[in-house]
Amino acid sequence: MRMRKKPWARDMIQSREDCVIASPEELKGTWKSLGYEHVIVEIGAGKGDYWINMGNMHPEELWVAVEKSVDAAGIALKKSIDRTKANMKFIVGDAALISQWFAEGEVERIHLNFSDPWPKKHHTKRRLTYSSFLNDYRSILMPGGKIVMKTDNSKLFEFSLVSFAENGWLLREAYVNYRETAHDEDAITEYESNFIALNQPIYRAVWEVVK
Amino acid sequence: MRMRKKPWARDMIQSREDCVIASPEELKGTWKSLGYEHVIVEIGAGKGDYWINMGNMHPEELWVAVEKSVDAAGIALKKSIDRTKANMKFIVGDAALISQWFAEGEVERIHLNFSDPWPKKHHTKRRLTYSSFLNDYRSILMPGGKIVMKTDNSKLFEFSLVSFAENGWLLREAYVNYRETAHDEDAITEYESNFIALNQPIYRAVWEVVK
Repeated sequence: MRMRKKPWARDMIQSREDCVIASPEELKGTWKSLGYEHVIVEIGAGKGDYWINMGNMHPEELWVAVEKSVDAAGIALKKSIDRTKANMKFIVGDAALISQWFAEGEVERIHLNFSDPWPKKHHTKRRLTYSSFLNDYRSILMPGGKIVMKTDNSKLFEFSLVSFAENGWLLREAYVNYRETAHDEDAITEYESNFIALNQPIYRAVWEVVK
Repeated sequence: MRMRKKPWARDMIQSREDCVIASPEELKGTWKSLGYEHVIVEIGAGKGDYWINMGNMHPEELWVAVEKSVDAAGIALKKSIDRTKANMKFIVGDAALISQWFAEGEVERIHLNFSDPWPKKHHTKRRLTYSSFLNDYRSILMPGGKIVMKTDNSKLFEFSLVSFAENGWLLREAYVNYRETAHDEDAITEYESNFIALNQPIYRAVWEVVK
């Protein structure tokens, strides 16, 4: 998501010591010791709406947001000031490093919401469902662990369906128009609402890791 | 596809001895002896447009249409009177019997076009991508053989993606809006054109058998 520079973003991130994990590699292998059995990671949390909603709806789960963009992270952390429960943590960093932050089998579920589609062919490797990322996800997920993906981008969805299949993941759920019917277990962000308002389909899939 | 009764359909089928295979079980294991290296089967050929187009476009391949409805088969066979090449054969019968008609590994590719979605849950087993059908397809397909599915029905497509995955097939291609871009290798039927005109997405996927 491209956005205007937020000169205050770095200060906001530093001020949110209550939830920002500055050195996630130091928690590797010990995330559950924060007091939660379920470790859920959202990669590419953007402005944080999904993380804020889900973290508040599921205080029994540890919700760790990962966002590379300092500006987006700043917005997410500003938005969440009055809505951050103890189970909500935030990493400002690149998902390519994720296996340095989480140990083998430590994560129960990974969410990918409206990830950057990187439509150009020479950017294929940057897509968060490219095989190198899938290998990292496989490593940090527990046996039976899942990836839940939502996107408005048909090309990213098509690419992902094939990429997961070719890398040996098991497709458990697929929706080519997720909002056709109600799914009350899930949070709808402002970003997603815009697509729904335009009557554009939301794609969603759930894959189970095979280890 | 529900349609008005065609009292002439049975006579039409009987008159088309040039391409109707009345006893396909007698050809089991010997289809290639008709003079073709590639045996392609379309299951649920309906009014025959796809079969007629593709059979004419690919005279080097044996194109075998399967259609259960006598009325639909009658229409397909009437339509094709002046457009039936030697490589085009037709079976009026139920695809549940397909492994009685084709031997292990005899078929190179199976096409499923706009199959009946059977939306009710208690009709799940009738869907042409239900696991019992997939087992039959696996048996008659050659190693590396493929199933190509096109549909306008989102629910059937979603069901099929999961059904193939859970039955161990390998997804090779997936499209959630196939007609977004041109694909000149394929035939567009009148039935499909209606959906394109309404700006409704066409879903398409290709799976490779794993044996």
